[in-house]
Amino acid sequence: MLVIQKFGGSSVGKPERIRRVAKRVVDTKRQGNDVVVVVSAMGDTTDELLELMYKVTDNPPKREMDMLLSTGEQISISLLSMAINDLGEKVKSLTGAQVGIRTDNVHTKARIVDVDRDRMQKELAGGNILVVAGFQGINDANDITTLGRGGSDTTAVALAAALNADVCEIFTDVDGVYTTDPRVVPEARKLNTITYDEMLELAHLGAQVLHPRSVECAKIYGIPIHVRSSFNHNPGTLVKEVENMEKAMVVTGVAHDINVARIGLFDVPDKPGIAWQIFRSLAGENINVDMIIQSAMRDDINDISFTVGRTDLRKTLEIVEKIKDEVNIKSYSHDEDVAKVSIVGAGMVTNPGVASLMFEALAQESINLEMISTSEIKISCIVKSTQAEKAVRALHKKFNLDQEQPCDCCS
Amino acid sequence: MLVIQKFGGSSVGKPERIRRVAKRVVDTKRQGNDVVVVVSAMGDTTDELLELMYKVTDNPPKREMDMLLSTGEQISISLLSMAINDLGEKVKSLTGAQVGIRTDNVHTKARIVDVDRDRMQKELAGGNILVVAGFQGINDANDITTLGRGGSDTTAVALAAALNADVCEIFTDVDGVYTTDPRVVPEARKLNTITYDEMLELAHLGAQVLHPRSVECAKIYGIPIHVRSSFNHNPGTLVKEVENMEKAMVVTGVAHDINVARIGLFDVPDKPGIAWQIFRSLAGENINVDMIIQSAMRDDINDISFTVGRTDLRKTLEIVEKIKDEVNIKSYSHDEDVAKVSIVGAGMVTNPGVASLMFEALAQESINLEMISTSEIKISCIVKSTQAEKAVRALHKKFNLDQEQPCDCCS
Repeated sequence: MLVIQKFGGSSVGKPERIRRVAKRVVDTKRQGNDVVVVVSAMGDTTDELLELMYKVTDNPPKREMDMLLSTGEQISISLLSMAINDLGEKVKSLTGAQVGIRTDNVHTKARIVDVDRDRMQKELAGGNILVVAGFQGINDANDITTLGRGGSDTTAVALAAALNADVCEIFTDVDGVYTTDPRVVPEARKLNTITYDEMLELAHLGAQVLHPRSVECAKIYGIPIHVRSSFNHNPGTLVKEVENMEKAMVVTGVAHDINVARIGLFDVPDKPGIAWQIFRSLAGENINVDMIIQSAMRDDINDISFTVGRTDLRKTLEIVEKIKDEVNIKSYSHDEDVAKVSIVGAGMVTNPGVASLMFEALAQESINLEMISTSEIKISCIVKSTQAEKAVRALHKKFNLDQEQPCDCCS
Repeated sequence: MLVIQKFGGSSVGKPERIRRVAKRVVDTKRQGNDVVVVVSAMGDTTDELLELMYKVTDNPPKREMDMLLSTGEQISISLLSMAINDLGEKVKSLTGAQVGIRTDNVHTKARIVDVDRDRMQKELAGGNILVVAGFQGINDANDITTLGRGGSDTTAVALAAALNADVCEIFTDVDGVYTTDPRVVPEARKLNTITYDEMLELAHLGAQVLHPRSVECAKIYGIPIHVRSSFNHNPGTLVKEVENMEKAMVVTGVAHDINVARIGLFDVPDKPGIAWQIFRSLAGENINVDMIIQSAMRDDINDISFTVGRTDLRKTLEIVEKIKDEVNIKSYSHDEDVAKVSIVGAGMVTNPGVASLMFEALAQESINLEMISTSEIKISCIVKSTQAEKAVRALHKKFNLDQEQPCDCCS
């Protein structure tokens, strides 16, 4: 088998952890597999580099930021390779440039365009374990780029796709993907399998195990992702295409996200192009708008509500204030004491009663819903942030997520 | 003009120093020059990386050491480029690989084979200041190599040669090359010019301003090196080919080196191949032997004395003990309380009385000479280390080095 293994920054954050990861990699190799390892920068390296940088300038060019930050993974791949060498296996570290991870030109947020196979295949054929720098690539000008958030997960999946790997193992500090946050619901259960779409919704919703980018990439290329613990050898959660849609669980998991703020725009003219005017301004400032709800109040005016990340709230309000007159927004409000609670499940689309079950569970706990948004495989509600955990517990119980599901046996 | 400027690790050791270097680079650019800057890793970076490395392994593969250590310059080039950008000039940092500094495959001690011009010329034509990582290159396998000691100076000179630069400025914490160590002789005088060969001898002898490798490279390609202070704008010392040999100073400088140990081998058979046997064993362990003196005592046996760096003494003695019986060395001794004192001057070759003047000066101070070695442009003596500084002062005075020389006006 060809196995891609990805270890994050905390897994290689200290010398002894690097040696432990080396042991795990070598074990996998000695089970008869070819192994390509992707690692992030060690624990605090990136923060330390940024701290140093801000002592030099407040206004770093992005090309030079990538030059700087890409050293973080270069340090961790060399150290991990040394530790693997100590255990007696042939090993080579490779930067993104050396592999040939080609990206676009968007420094600090580059997207992978293509991955060369030649160097990796040659080194694998030579019996080497490969240790590849995550998070980084190279553009057409031969300049170093970094991939931004979720970059190392994405590197791992992209290498798996390029090399047609059998599995891409993502090692984390949890045992896998859970039906909900175990810190909120102690009965939360580890899922054996989950579909790409479910994982995408959960990842977007703040489950924080896998970055959505990597899941999207895995879905496109059909790469199975095995999310598992770096602390034990238990099987984790396999993210893969559902084999039998009918057998899919109705609700797979419950997620909540407290990094949410809600903005309400009142008495907005009901004219074509108004929404475009508003959300173009926000996109121009790189503000990611999540839920958008427009409710027709009267014939000629609307209320528009939307949510943004709480950290973007201040900037969002500045923009709203600036465009208020131009767009003819009469007034607006905001609320940052809110949270988003969602249920996700690929089987939801064929089970029309799911939404009403959700609303019932929340009503029984006297939880008021401020906004509702649905997709084919998820339903999200905005609630008071003080009620978020209660909502999660109620939903987890309502959908029997603490009990093994009959259809969760296809792994 | 095209100017190459090289700044060492201490010049870029702190954020405020990086900004000061940026100012200097930008000043040079604004005087109408094209500028390529070569920088070393910041102050302690290399030591910190090594410390981290030894927490992971005691036995690092050299390829991975190069992968690790090359991050040091990558950090400093990105930060310096950010500081230059802050001052409003176009700038790009380039790693050794991005420039195309091609080396052989000897990891941690690679030698430069070739330097690509294309990328640098393209970026210079675009109006950019270039900030290039010193000390590193790339081999035929596309692997990162480092150049070992003196690497950054050598990078600067190699870039100057490749680009046919007008001058290569090496910035240090001293004002230039002195007739001797000013800490030993307060009257020591800064030289306006010095030939490559004189500089080579002084560099080898521990003057520690320029690494011999870079001087050798500059001599081959006829690149003038300007050694100057990073703290002021005074002209420093120009290292270049002598224009009028007859005018060359008899003695240019006095150097001393206390990193010396002397080994004496007694009653060694006077047979062909013996010296080869001994010094092959030392070379095999990478021990650099400096002076070698063989004096015929009787018909069939010799005494052989040689010096090594003091840090290599223990290993040297181990090797001597190991080969003693095989080579038939009857006994041996060592002395680490010695130092080497040398005078250097391109005019020496045409002035036969120089050696006797040197011996006279040392005899007048009752300094005993334990070994003597001469070349066309230098004479070195091994003396007791406690007498080394006294010897330097006596020689500096004897050759009137504290006075401006009539022939030191060709700069």
